[in-house]
Amino acid sequence: MEALQGWKRTMMCGSLRAADAGKEVILMGWVQRRRDHGGLIFVDLRDREGITQVVFSPEVDQEAFAKAEAIRNEYVIAVKGEVRLRPEGTVNPNLATGEVEVYAREVKVLNGAKTPPFYIQDNIDVDENLRLRYRYLDLRRPEMQRALGLRHRLVKTIRDYLDARGFWEIETPMLTKSTPEGARDYLVPSRVNPGKFFALPQSPQIFKQILMVAGMDKYFQIVRCFRDEDLRSDRQPEFTQLDLEMSFVEREEVLTLMEEMIAEVVRTTLGREVPTPFPRLTYAEAMARYGSDKPDTRFGMELVDLTDIAAGCEFKVFRAAADNGGVVKAINAKGCAHFSRKELDELTQYVAIYGAKGLAYIQMTPEGPKSPIAKFFKEEELQAILERLGAETGDLLLFGADTPRIVADSLGHLRVHLAEKLGLIDPEAMNFLWVVDFPLLEWDEEEKRYVAMHHPFTSPMDEDIELMDTDPGRVRAKAYDMVLNGVEIGGGSIRIHRRDVQEKMFRLLGLSQEEAVEKFGFMLEAFEYGTPPHGGIAFGIDRLVMLLAGRDTIRDVIAFPKTQSASCLMTGAPSEVSAKQLKELHIKLDVIPRK
Amino acid sequence: MEALQGWKRTMMCGSLRAADAGKEVILMGWVQRRRDHGGLIFVDLRDREGITQVVFSPEVDQEAFAKAEAIRNEYVIAVKGEVRLRPEGTVNPNLATGEVEVYAREVKVLNGAKTPPFYIQDNIDVDENLRLRYRYLDLRRPEMQRALGLRHRLVKTIRDYLDARGFWEIETPMLTKSTPEGARDYLVPSRVNPGKFFALPQSPQIFKQILMVAGMDKYFQIVRCFRDEDLRSDRQPEFTQLDLEMSFVEREEVLTLMEEMIAEVVRTTLGREVPTPFPRLTYAEAMARYGSDKPDTRFGMELVDLTDIAAGCEFKVFRAAADNGGVVKAINAKGCAHFSRKELDELTQYVAIYGAKGLAYIQMTPEGPKSPIAKFFKEEELQAILERLGAETGDLLLFGADTPRIVADSLGHLRVHLAEKLGLIDPEAMNFLWVVDFPLLEWDEEEKRYVAMHHPFTSPMDEDIELMDTDPGRVRAKAYDMVLNGVEIGGGSIRIHRRDVQEKMFRLLGLSQEEAVEKFGFMLEAFEYGTPPHGGIAFGIDRLVMLLAGRDTIRDVIAFPKTQSASCLMTGAPSEVSAKQLKELHIKLDVIPRK
Repeated sequence: MEALQGWKRTMMCGSLRAADAGKEVILMGWVQRRRDHGGLIFVDLRDREGITQVVFSPEVDQEAFAKAEAIRNEYVIAVKGEVRLRPEGTVNPNLATGEVEVYAREVKVLNGAKTPPFYIQDNIDVDENLRLRYRYLDLRRPEMQRALGLRHRLVKTIRDYLDARGFWEIETPMLTKSTPEGARDYLVPSRVNPGKFFALPQSPQIFKQILMVAGMDKYFQIVRCFRDEDLRSDRQPEFTQLDLEMSFVEREEVLTLMEEMIAEVVRTTLGREVPTPFPRLTYAEAMARYGSDKPDTRFGMELVDLTDIAAGCEFKVFRAAADNGGVVKAINAKGCAHFSRKELDELTQYVAIYGAKGLAYIQMTPEGPKSPIAKFFKEEELQAILERLGAETGDLLLFGADTPRIVADSLGHLRVHLAEKLGLIDPEAMNFLWVVDFPLLEWDEEEKRYVAMHHPFTSPMDEDIELMDTDPGRVRAKAYDMVLNGVEIGGGSIRIHRRDVQEKMFRLLGLSQEEAVEKFGFMLEAFEYGTPPHGGIAFGIDRLVMLLAGRDTIRDVIAFPKTQSASCLMTGAPSEVSAKQLKELHIKLDVIPRK
Repeated sequence: MEALQGWKRTMMCGSLRAADAGKEVILMGWVQRRRDHGGLIFVDLRDREGITQVVFSPEVDQEAFAKAEAIRNEYVIAVKGEVRLRPEGTVNPNLATGEVEVYAREVKVLNGAKTPPFYIQDNIDVDENLRLRYRYLDLRRPEMQRALGLRHRLVKTIRDYLDARGFWEIETPMLTKSTPEGARDYLVPSRVNPGKFFALPQSPQIFKQILMVAGMDKYFQIVRCFRDEDLRSDRQPEFTQLDLEMSFVEREEVLTLMEEMIAEVVRTTLGREVPTPFPRLTYAEAMARYGSDKPDTRFGMELVDLTDIAAGCEFKVFRAAADNGGVVKAINAKGCAHFSRKELDELTQYVAIYGAKGLAYIQMTPEGPKSPIAKFFKEEELQAILERLGAETGDLLLFGADTPRIVADSLGHLRVHLAEKLGLIDPEAMNFLWVVDFPLLEWDEEEKRYVAMHHPFTSPMDEDIELMDTDPGRVRAKAYDMVLNGVEIGGGSIRIHRRDVQEKMFRLLGLSQEEAVEKFGFMLEAFEYGTPPHGGIAFGIDRLVMLLAGRDTIRDVIAFPKTQSASCLMTGAPSEVSAKQLKELHIKLDVIPRK
């Protein structure tokens, strides 16, 4: 192995072009592959920016040629040589540097390499655990490097955008107070304060509001947050958030500022224009039309309400739903009348996941509507249903009749499921929208109490404040979510900035005065010393990068992610620690020993 | 309390100038003070950017005037009015907006305020604990806001500078593996993996090196780090670091890049030019001339070696030091011959802190050298000493004779102590320098083993690698520290990138092969798959901001710092947690109950 000893790289491997022919260059990187051909040795030299073909010829330098014979894949080498145009017929149009090659005069082997356990190239079909174990090799693959490059560009763009508009990035503590509410906290035992614990922040929510009380005016932070939840689906114990707050603003300013920011992010990372302002849907409208508070509007197939028609019909499933405060809705799967019994069964099983007890349907055959339930409807009822759904020959109508929640959930998911199955979704489309006018509270059937739909600091609408006393479930919040292609990427609100309103909110959530003071006393107190109206938002950076980079999991846009069992396969974290460490932290293990 | 209801701020309180006279504006902020004078009410309205004087006149608007009468300090208000030039003689030259005032036509009281426990102004003389308890009020003080504003500008400048040079900001995990080495780890019990713990990172050192193995080429991160140490002096449990690493470089490139970055930071935050390249001192030279590896070069008073002269003299303290491998050195405190007995005693006590058993001195009086020790020297010895020290009438010569470490420590600190006492330090000076060529290892007398002077991943100099086997204490490292005014602000090195050298280093540090693999096995393994030469640096952001902002403690440049007992006086963290939380984490308390 040789040392650099004064060699300085003159450029990256992706940058040479025909115009560079004749130049003397020094390149450094990894050997992507080596080929021997016609008495020459060809090496594809790779770095973060691309690949350059290096040629070793005994006629150029005998010693370099001899060294090149020993080079293997993933060796780290430095090459000094001359850029030449490739001979006629050997130009590689698939490579940015494909018009040239570098004839090596000198080479240094900076480091050797064992054979990697998988190929360093895109689209490999390898168990993800192997990739995570050898993350340093996985991250060498160009698609992974592009993803992290895009991530860097994205956060840099956000910072530039916010800095130019007077936002200050201010850091908030990672070692903070446990106020379990919602998700579980990660705890950190205190050595200096025996028996006491810090919590890692689930979000800097309280600190950013305190910063508004402190007159910081416009704050943001790209910040790590933590939730100790079971990692079903695509979650990570630690995740990154753009956290933002501003004083003296109403909803409109936040929305405008944020949609312009996202448009700028898309412009710099993908070079695409996103039209602004984004469409807005109220929560009520989103639920009614899409059965979801994060609707995917890249396709139609909207939910159609039939409750009024169903209320008078003979079909007892529909009738019962309508009579008991439930709803009857349907979607029209255009051109799906031909679905087989098996396909219809599969759809029925699919909606069952969301609590639907069945899935009534009507197939619009050339012979007319065909359906096990058609017989229950009077002709004019059937016509009204078909008309409202815009049913035509060849369509498949699918019905839900249950509580509003179950109908929304099942038909809402069903329309997405069908859209994917039918290929209705344009993979290039980027449908951003805002959902606004959320309810302040949701009734939690298990706990028999209200829970905050966003969080306890969300302001009710001014005109609904009085309803907090009389009909809390009807209070709307000054909350808003940004949605991209059916995925919530950001959410926020105008906050409560008055102690009395905040205390009322805590009461509605079932916190006693004592608990409220114990957990949030300093915040309630702060509100009494001159708190400006303020509001903000938080974006999930991992998810946003994933969507823009076109990856399927956030693990592909995080350098060192954890597995579903919250462990790191590369370092072996978490791990056992010494008795001395535990002793110092005033804790003991409480583990049932394995037999 | 009133709501904004469509009012939009047109500008900040610091921005109005004479040219704005006649404009209609809306300002929002806090009431700095209210005065009633000549039938008018004057309100100094404050926000992050400054103060504007608002005038309420019953002739302009009766209702606004009436509302203004109820306004108190720190109330949050919004004012709509007209900018007018101040009348002759009432211009305030101390205020950026002092040429104008705003005549209020309308006012909204957005929130009230209790009387704060201290004044919202600079240079208050208040117990720091009170400031920390009411941090949201403390941070409203302009000097605190300026400090956080400077901090934002500093980190933004660093990010711009590095982004423009191809560095990617890549996030590394906060929940990682405990590898206690040096400082104590903060631990996080794992719920999913009973009996196992994550550690919060002391630095992302290993991850950034892994990123180099992964071909990321140029990485940086402004990142939170954690050390569970006793908070003597000015430390915090969590602190922020600029962490940076690059591949295919030697020391020279890192130094040049970093000094230009710091010059750019000083330019954008303070508008001052710092000459580059920075002076460089070898570790040996820094220790010899300043008795410190982070020398303050804003003044002279350098250490002068007299060991050769002392070796032959009759004064047994000097002679013994010289004969037993120690040194004799002195500094010349110009013009301090008049120091009283009491002052000399104070200096003797001062050096005792650093292990010096006494402090010999010579006073250069008009009558000649006066000293308890003069009699031990032959005339030519005395003359040689005076000459080497450039002694003139009026000077005070102060001597140290002991091990090299104790002499360096005591005289090194003494020169700084005297410079402060004598006012020799130009408060405006910014003396940046590099210290290079550090030893790789230090002998730890307590543990009877070598410890890494920087950390175990620092590369030895190529020409010294063979000394690792024969004379480890003489191996120099490819390490470098950046020093500002006697404070180390950054440190780094070219790293080891070969498994065999890294293993040798671990052995020198007393790690068995088994321990090395247990702790760092994945890194050693990574080194075998094609690791490029690489190096980097880390800067302490809190300390750098503190120095540039001219603050005395890093707590003044951290929004929510902890106290010396690692607690947060505002939130009450750390705090007790529920039995349920502990149970879920598989731990029990191990606390001796208080009687």
